[in-house]
Amino acid sequence: MSLHSFLNPKSVAVVGASGKKDKIGRQILDNVIASGFKGKLYPINLKEKRIANLDAYANLGDLPRGSFASMLVVIAIPAKFVVSEIEKCAKLGVKNVIIISAGFGEQGGKGLKMEEEIEKIALRKKMNVLGPNCLGLINNFNNLNATFTNSDRRAGNIALLSQSGAIGSVVLDWLKGQNINLGYFFSLGNKVVLGENEILEYLLRDKEIEIIVLYLEEVARGKEFVDIVSRLSKKKIVAVLPAGNSSLGSKLASSHTGAIASSERVMRTALTRAGAVYLEDLGDLFNVISLSKKIYWHNNNSFSLNVLTNAGGLGVLTADEVSGQGVELQSSVDVLGDAPAQRYQKNLREMLSRRDVDNVLVLLSPQTSTEPIKTAQAIINLSKKHPKKLLITSFVGGNSLDKANRLLKENNIPVFGSPEEAVRAFAKVVEHRKRLKTLKPYNSDGIKVGRVVKDDDYLKSLRLLKKYKIDIVKTIKYAKPSAVSFKYPVVVKVVGPKFLHKTDKQAVITDINNRSELIKVVGQLEKSHRKEFKDLNNYIVVQPQIDEAQELILGFKRDSSFGAILMVGLGGIYAEVFKEVNMSLSDLDLKQAKELLKSLKIYPILKGARGKEGYDINNLAKAIVNLARLANEHPEIKELDINPVFVQRKKVLAGDVRIIL
Amino acid sequence: MSLHSFLNPKSVAVVGASGKKDKIGRQILDNVIASGFKGKLYPINLKEKRIANLDAYANLGDLPRGSFASMLVVIAIPAKFVVSEIEKCAKLGVKNVIIISAGFGEQGGKGLKMEEEIEKIALRKKMNVLGPNCLGLINNFNNLNATFTNSDRRAGNIALLSQSGAIGSVVLDWLKGQNINLGYFFSLGNKVVLGENEILEYLLRDKEIEIIVLYLEEVARGKEFVDIVSRLSKKKIVAVLPAGNSSLGSKLASSHTGAIASSERVMRTALTRAGAVYLEDLGDLFNVISLSKKIYWHNNNSFSLNVLTNAGGLGVLTADEVSGQGVELQSSVDVLGDAPAQRYQKNLREMLSRRDVDNVLVLLSPQTSTEPIKTAQAIINLSKKHPKKLLITSFVGGNSLDKANRLLKENNIPVFGSPEEAVRAFAKVVEHRKRLKTLKPYNSDGIKVGRVVKDDDYLKSLRLLKKYKIDIVKTIKYAKPSAVSFKYPVVVKVVGPKFLHKTDKQAVITDINNRSELIKVVGQLEKSHRKEFKDLNNYIVVQPQIDEAQELILGFKRDSSFGAILMVGLGGIYAEVFKEVNMSLSDLDLKQAKELLKSLKIYPILKGARGKEGYDINNLAKAIVNLARLANEHPEIKELDINPVFVQRKKVLAGDVRIIL
Repeated sequence: MSLHSFLNPKSVAVVGASGKKDKIGRQILDNVIASGFKGKLYPINLKEKRIANLDAYANLGDLPRGSFASMLVVIAIPAKFVVSEIEKCAKLGVKNVIIISAGFGEQGGKGLKMEEEIEKIALRKKMNVLGPNCLGLINNFNNLNATFTNSDRRAGNIALLSQSGAIGSVVLDWLKGQNINLGYFFSLGNKVVLGENEILEYLLRDKEIEIIVLYLEEVARGKEFVDIVSRLSKKKIVAVLPAGNSSLGSKLASSHTGAIASSERVMRTALTRAGAVYLEDLGDLFNVISLSKKIYWHNNNSFSLNVLTNAGGLGVLTADEVSGQGVELQSSVDVLGDAPAQRYQKNLREMLSRRDVDNVLVLLSPQTSTEPIKTAQAIINLSKKHPKKLLITSFVGGNSLDKANRLLKENNIPVFGSPEEAVRAFAKVVEHRKRLKTLKPYNSDGIKVGRVVKDDDYLKSLRLLKKYKIDIVKTIKYAKPSAVSFKYPVVVKVVGPKFLHKTDKQAVITDINNRSELIKVVGQLEKSHRKEFKDLNNYIVVQPQIDEAQELILGFKRDSSFGAILMVGLGGIYAEVFKEVNMSLSDLDLKQAKELLKSLKIYPILKGARGKEGYDINNLAKAIVNLARLANEHPEIKELDINPVFVQRKKVLAGDVRIIL
Repeated sequence: MSLHSFLNPKSVAVVGASGKKDKIGRQILDNVIASGFKGKLYPINLKEKRIANLDAYANLGDLPRGSFASMLVVIAIPAKFVVSEIEKCAKLGVKNVIIISAGFGEQGGKGLKMEEEIEKIALRKKMNVLGPNCLGLINNFNNLNATFTNSDRRAGNIALLSQSGAIGSVVLDWLKGQNINLGYFFSLGNKVVLGENEILEYLLRDKEIEIIVLYLEEVARGKEFVDIVSRLSKKKIVAVLPAGNSSLGSKLASSHTGAIASSERVMRTALTRAGAVYLEDLGDLFNVISLSKKIYWHNNNSFSLNVLTNAGGLGVLTADEVSGQGVELQSSVDVLGDAPAQRYQKNLREMLSRRDVDNVLVLLSPQTSTEPIKTAQAIINLSKKHPKKLLITSFVGGNSLDKANRLLKENNIPVFGSPEEAVRAFAKVVEHRKRLKTLKPYNSDGIKVGRVVKDDDYLKSLRLLKKYKIDIVKTIKYAKPSAVSFKYPVVVKVVGPKFLHKTDKQAVITDINNRSELIKVVGQLEKSHRKEFKDLNNYIVVQPQIDEAQELILGFKRDSSFGAILMVGLGGIYAEVFKEVNMSLSDLDLKQAKELLKSLKIYPILKGARGKEGYDINNLAKAIVNLARLANEHPEIKELDINPVFVQRKKVLAGDVRIIL
């Protein structure tokens, strides 16, 4: 399904167009007219004959044969009539439909049922369907605003995809004052047929769009999404504001690593892996759109900022924020409070002419001799001479700066509300520039499915690790004391379905120093857990005690969208307290596994700090890669924890394992 | 020195007034005239006879006798002439002076010298001097703008104190568009005589000011500041934007706890203790001023937010931010995308009429049926019926919402740029409401100075702890193996001036299990450190090894402004990695010490998590209080670390100590 004809139809029919100007169908018709659409326009209304000075038709079927394949049909009628209208479209050979109407999946029950029918028809007939429950579509390259919201008509390099219509309206409204031009707007709505993946795939080959901004409350097919975005990010900027991640907090899994993971973390992991710009909030979204040239984000290896200010105080606040954001400050020049435009110009010219200066932030506070407009003009002139440098501004104050700020925006100079916001936006740019250097194509292919794991028996689970070359602590099922062949001290554990939370159940006894202590401990355990041991899946195991090691947690949790999410973090008593866990998608290689470890706060300890010998990072990274392979080859395993992993100086051993099928 | 006559002079003389309109002295004169000042006005200029239609005088001394005591003299002449002008003022009996001129302490050398002279004269003659290097003073209650920046004239409940003139300009300019009225503005400049403490002390008794906003790059007398602010915070809101704290990073102390502490942390600790609102950045400052009614911050025990929105997406973003900020969400009502003003009104009326609803955020996105202005009007009307409830708004979009937002501001309804910003501002309010509940007067008095510590000998330092009832691990200076009377395993340490970083110098040997191992270890140490042992201050000590304990760090570091800053945090290998350290001023009592511990992430471990026995929190809190007393009574000690502190189940023992004099 190419989206070309969807975006560039030869004609538009609006089902539900009306003589009443407050009807949504009519508003869409009016917007299509106002946007200067060059093709044919067909209002469809059962009763009315003329709508908005156009001939209206009672029925889609009344339209000229031969026009349907290149037509866009916009449906804005009550939900209960939509399915039959789609059937009609299918019969007539319509390939492109927008369903504006609400009252579908978001209401559950019958609404979901109708969505299924629409999907079935669309898939069978290869129809592009946007919505339902959406605002519609804007293609400014084709003078087409097929939404019921108004928008600037100038076409530009931005594409906006929003799952929420209202957020779409917010951004479209905001854009009007910014002189930043939109190419496409897709209101995704319930995403029954067309979702972010289909549209992003199309944008991959679009030549005009440089920046793609998404508001998403859910990513349905996450692996595909990561694949597409990682390819897009090589060429364009993809910035995503994910929402609703906190409400998913309730879905926290029951297992240990699960308790630390959160959907927000998973989203961040996936988007980072894909090379997307992660937007924290609506302010971030506006800031990123403000940096609307590709050149700002790509083709630049410079990571440090130069500041020009007429206010020492603003310079100080900027320096504070720069250190807080982990960005470098290359230089900070104070042109002093009485600086007229001319002094700004002179200093900025000097700064920009330096070959080692790539990023400049100009700050201005309104003081007595300040010339905001002339200063803005000087900045604009100099920016034209240095189109490849990042030149951003923050003129801070009130309405007295409105004109200057408007002038800057009209000339495509990014404007920020405060120096700190400018620095935060710059930090996003730097983060992205750095990430692009290591961005690799996503590889979710080649998953060989191994023999399906059918139960979570403890010893079998350990053997599964071994099969994937993850070494384990020697573990035997306890039978009699003489069978315990390894050196004391030993550890005794009760394992099995009733002992998932071993620590809470006091099912791990350490520091057993000799055989008589062992007999005593086992005896006590057998007595106190008599009931549980009736189930033969609960039993006692014995392991040699490992003391000289750094304890970590290693595991994965299967996300319904993004697949297995690998997790590695601090183990032991501080695990819950510091939640020091890093995550990765399961396509990581040895190098990426090492990067994952490097970004842990405890990495200096692993590496060997203060003259102490380091731990076996290499084998740890290998274990992570092996676990990823296990995760990919065993989709039946929902969660797997290795807790603890004993990382020794020259060995890595899984001390315990827990599998949730 | 009361500031009453300084703020309310009967006449104003401007030294450096001029016929030339671009001179700063002239701009000040013009501003005093424009602000509607009712008293006499005297331009002082050596040559000119008429300035701005006023008689000008060649010399201050030419002014009518008897007027000087109630006169404000504003000096705006080159720095080199200022001292003699101050001398003249002193002689004439002038009590109130503003020095606008720059070129003093900020330039070092001679400038500093001149400041000292000014200070001397002012103190001797009890003169109020603001500046030098400042913008001046605004008292809108007395129609007096004695600055060279313009400002709204309407007097309100806000006082602004800014160490940076430019930041002052920024805020004054911003205020113009906000309908938030300023009572006083003090441009502090170099703070030679009048600083924040003097002005805050005056504002304590001012009846009009409710919100005091400060931009500070330094707090000179921190203890006094904390004292004043903690008294002020009971009655008014004091919000502080501290700046330049990151640049002080270089002054990190050499010791262990010192390395974790940063000036930004110290500022935060002090301001929090004082009950001030801590502002992170300029955006925060604007947001706090927007919440310009005292009622929002005081007299309210409700900590949860209610949201009304016409956009599900905005509601979702709000919910995400609410969870991120640790605020509660009481309710979230979606009036749907097609909501006209009337539906907003109905729902808001219902919401506000509920007795358990105290805080409401109204969100609006511009959609087809949206009526921003009418909705704003409905909010304004309802807010008047519920003046004690916190009602804030975020209408998000572009210029189409400008009128509605202006209307809201004109009616004192706080307006925020995004839902997330509104939530962050609300979180500040909640944090402040909570803090007010436990705010206690600061007590820096009653410091009995003990016998002065003169050296940092290890065993003497341990005895000092003991004197303050902090138990220590039994420690003996090593003489011969038979003198080691306590149980093995033992620990051997080399202590003394050459062994400050014991771990780095491998000067701590643990797990010595018997006498022969002890002899061997001591022998090796004596051999490898022969050189250092020539200095008798370096020697070997032996301690019993403590294994069953939670290791913490306890210490203090003396800040030049705020006095001893107590620190407690995680010890052991993770100390540097997680930097889990909480700080407090040294006036804390047992209850506050416990609160300090409670806010540590590792508190659950201290308390005893997962069925495990807890540690001796009570004695730990006592040790903190005792250490605070030690810090207060020994101002000669610059830093003290107890690292580790062994917190056992029923005992707390200092395992090591280091003192820097």
